[in-house]
Amino acid sequence: MDTLELLLMQNARFYEAFEQADMDTMTAVWSHDAQVRCIHPGWGAATGWESVRKSWESIFSGGTALRFSLRNVDARVCGTFGVVSLLEEIVLAGEVVQQSIQAAATNLFAFEAGEWRMIVHHSSPVMTVEEGDLGYRFN
Amino acid sequence: MDTLELLLMQNARFYEAFEQADMDTMTAVWSHDAQVRCIHPGWGAATGWESVRKSWESIFSGGTALRFSLRNVDARVCGTFGVVSLLEEIVLAGEVVQQSIQAAATNLFAFEAGEWRMIVHHSSPVMTVEEGDLGYRFN
Repeated sequence: MDTLELLLMQNARFYEAFEQADMDTMTAVWSHDAQVRCIHPGWGAATGWESVRKSWESIFSGGTALRFSLRNVDARVCGTFGVVSLLEEIVLAGEVVQQSIQAAATNLFAFEAGEWRMIVHHSSPVMTVEEGDLGYRFN
Repeated sequence: MDTLELLLMQNARFYEAFEQADMDTMTAVWSHDAQVRCIHPGWGAATGWESVRKSWESIFSGGTALRFSLRNVDARVCGTFGVVSLLEEIVLAGEVVQQSIQAAATNLFAFEAGEWRMIVHHSSPVMTVEEGDLGYRFN
């Protein structure tokens, strides 16, 4: 298995941990250094593993089951650095009326001690944009 | 000048081009391959240089002058890959009443032909979050 396949496998493991609210696996997927950053949709950055860990504990304690479909997945490896870009289709599971949102994600990994560890997760809401409405609005 | 300093200089050049709506400099800052991705606040990903270029032309044609203050800047180099994480404080310039927004940004660069070229720009709105309101909401 080459490093690109391993990268995609670790990216998939991240979303499995997310869906299952599995803190042990989430902890194993992430690097634990002081530079790691995690940006959940609409949030500012959590910086350093302690803050990142707390952000996951907060989300997992909320009890909302999320299901992810990953679209437009694109991965590249550059030495010991890997990036996976994708569109997250997120469905709130277990409700009679299901709702879904889309988020754009950039996931960075560093190859440490024989495996890919996440160093940045950046996920942001994709809003429905009217033709000609190009963001950077102030309202 | 080491590669980390060059990375931060190129990151600064990106924001100068943005403020000045300078398409030539923006074109020089970016890599032009088919994998580059650009995510403006609230947008889905523009993928490939042609789409990324068009997104900048659209923003620049809007005529809104933006001024950036960069906070919490953190950069790391891993071989020929560089990442700059930061908080963008964005001010709409030239109005009597100035408004500002905050965005979390992840900027990735690859070292190509002797210089850092941007391969991912991911900027997302930072919303005011109430205590206990942890995102991944469906409303």
